[in-house]
Amino acid sequence: MRTTAGQAGSRHEVRSHRLADGRQALFFSDPGHPPVDHIDDPRALDPRAGGGQLRFDRLTGEWVAVAAHRQARTYLPPADQCPLCPSRDGRRSEIPAPDYDVVVFENRFPSLGPDLGQLPEPADDDAGRGLWGVPAPAVGRCEVVVFTPDHHGSFARLGPERARTVVEAWAQRTAALSALPGIRHVFPFENRGQEIGVTLHHPHGQIYAYPYPAPYAARLAERSRRHLAAAGRPLMGELLRSESEAGDRMVLQGEHFSAYVPYAARWPLEVHLVPHRQVPDLAALSAAERDELAVLYPDLLARLDRLYPTPTPYIAAWHQAPVNDADREAGWLHLQLTSPRRAEDKLKYLAGSEAAMGAFINDVPAEKAAARLREAAR
Amino acid sequence: MRTTAGQAGSRHEVRSHRLADGRQALFFSDPGHPPVDHIDDPRALDPRAGGGQLRFDRLTGEWVAVAAHRQARTYLPPADQCPLCPSRDGRRSEIPAPDYDVVVFENRFPSLGPDLGQLPEPADDDAGRGLWGVPAPAVGRCEVVVFTPDHHGSFARLGPERARTVVEAWAQRTAALSALPGIRHVFPFENRGQEIGVTLHHPHGQIYAYPYPAPYAARLAERSRRHLAAAGRPLMGELLRSESEAGDRMVLQGEHFSAYVPYAARWPLEVHLVPHRQVPDLAALSAAERDELAVLYPDLLARLDRLYPTPTPYIAAWHQAPVNDADREAGWLHLQLTSPRRAEDKLKYLAGSEAAMGAFINDVPAEKAAARLREAAR
Repeated sequence: MRTTAGQAGSRHEVRSHRLADGRQALFFSDPGHPPVDHIDDPRALDPRAGGGQLRFDRLTGEWVAVAAHRQARTYLPPADQCPLCPSRDGRRSEIPAPDYDVVVFENRFPSLGPDLGQLPEPADDDAGRGLWGVPAPAVGRCEVVVFTPDHHGSFARLGPERARTVVEAWAQRTAALSALPGIRHVFPFENRGQEIGVTLHHPHGQIYAYPYPAPYAARLAERSRRHLAAAGRPLMGELLRSESEAGDRMVLQGEHFSAYVPYAARWPLEVHLVPHRQVPDLAALSAAERDELAVLYPDLLARLDRLYPTPTPYIAAWHQAPVNDADREAGWLHLQLTSPRRAEDKLKYLAGSEAAMGAFINDVPAEKAAARLREAAR
Repeated sequence: MRTTAGQAGSRHEVRSHRLADGRQALFFSDPGHPPVDHIDDPRALDPRAGGGQLRFDRLTGEWVAVAAHRQARTYLPPADQCPLCPSRDGRRSEIPAPDYDVVVFENRFPSLGPDLGQLPEPADDDAGRGLWGVPAPAVGRCEVVVFTPDHHGSFARLGPERARTVVEAWAQRTAALSALPGIRHVFPFENRGQEIGVTLHHPHGQIYAYPYPAPYAARLAERSRRHLAAAGRPLMGELLRSESEAGDRMVLQGEHFSAYVPYAARWPLEVHLVPHRQVPDLAALSAAERDELAVLYPDLLARLDRLYPTPTPYIAAWHQAPVNDADREAGWLHLQLTSPRRAEDKLKYLAGSEAAMGAFINDVPAEKAAARLREAAR
């Protein structure tokens, strides 16, 4: 398949191929780089894992995915067996090409998918008892986004051109996944650091396409809708204005994006990167906005890494409006970048109050974290 | 102060004393043990830490506590400097007595308190902008519950008599904290294991008395209220009946309590221990129920510890109905016991999907976990 990524006029080319077991792999090229027109994947792979379940939790009204097959997933392989490195010198990885720029492919051990479809809508009462103990198939899609062929790199060090290609891939995948049957919410994210459970060191992110609005997204959408109705202005825009006026939590300000430690930060390190214009998701960003994002986002990540002598673990979460939702008009794309690191040798753990009750205690005031991140500019 | 714990006719005596800096310390005695009638705390302690803040998060509608003074809290002290051991042989701990059974005292580094009072009610719009960047004082109360003077013990090995005294202490504290000004929710819990961030090894739990219903409790209360209105029966009772009928997730069944791995378990190990009778909190349990709880709860904990050669980290969370809440009549006390351990040498981490989106993926089916826990009976 031959196409260009994202919006019309994009300088990025993308090719869609199939891995040996039928999974889709998309190769995104930096501008001017030759596209990967052909792959050769002769691996004898087992049939695709699947059969996961979605169970509706009556207590909380939330879906829980049960993915027993994931217990067997690849766990901290040595560098010479990395499944995300290029396939070369006789060794075959998950990416059957000797070189690439950015690759997005379907996860071999997906929490959701590969089947697609609509989830049933649970009712409040027990009419029919249909959802009390009958799981639904774990429909949806989980993709891996490989940022670079360099096993030892990081997003912060990709350089703006490659980072721009990743932004293009995120935007293209957000649009494409949103259009798949039954998908209600698309979530691009990166987990970085063994301290937070990362099982592959090669620089990569993931995209989860859920068949339900994820609980946090549903909460944000509901709050945003209520605020818009009550105040006549979008909630995230109000927060951006409030933070800009206060100033003491700002980290950086660009033409199209600003970053700040939010007033009510939950984590010792937490930054929100927010576009100045209300857009529901990455696919809605203009070319100029994508260009700036490809500079400012790695800048933030690099600041995190300058805080301590060793790399700081983080979760980078792109909050997008739910797909085809009535609340979408109140939504406002933003990045939530968090780290549990509270000192050089200490992590914040989610224990009783946070993990069981959702009540966060943060030992680091937002203003102090923001000052450190401002000072960590190059 | 001289009183007896919990209900009239309790066989447990309790004495209330003050530590050197004014914090309350309650000494609960096993039946027949002499009460601790006198303490002597000559320590020259700094004035009580406080000045924490509560910040209202507009995005989520949740309060976040900011407790900068907690960064200095005691962190994994050597056994001979344990602040929870008895004070003897010239060494002074937080507990100024040479021996004790169960002690509850105010945390020296509290996330909430020591001040008490009402929190303001946030509005949906920005009228007055009063809550956009003005923190409230972190009112509330945080208590430490020391289960035993034995530094190397565990709750599972307390024995039924001592466990019964802890249950009595929980019940008494639930009633007393619920009656304090501004308290909306009382949460007894135990974090066990360095893997989940525990900073003191001595067997102990905590009680948080929040000035707001904690987010998870608020969610449960709302779901429970809606279910009661729609179905005419309490949600937790329906779940208990559903699990009893299914059977394959049951772990143990007593006269007054049953324990099961819930159908939609979020964690590799998760057990709910549920009273057969609808009670809102621990204070409402009858003497017979408390007696059985003191046997069944340590039984569950001991099963967790038989699964692997080393102790299994866990969070034991007592979900109680919010205080003075309209939803209280739909509430139903239960224990949620969870562990992130997914194999002998592997933990489940909360990364992107769980930590940022609240969308849980569990690699271990509930039925498999339940079978293991049934087999782990002595």
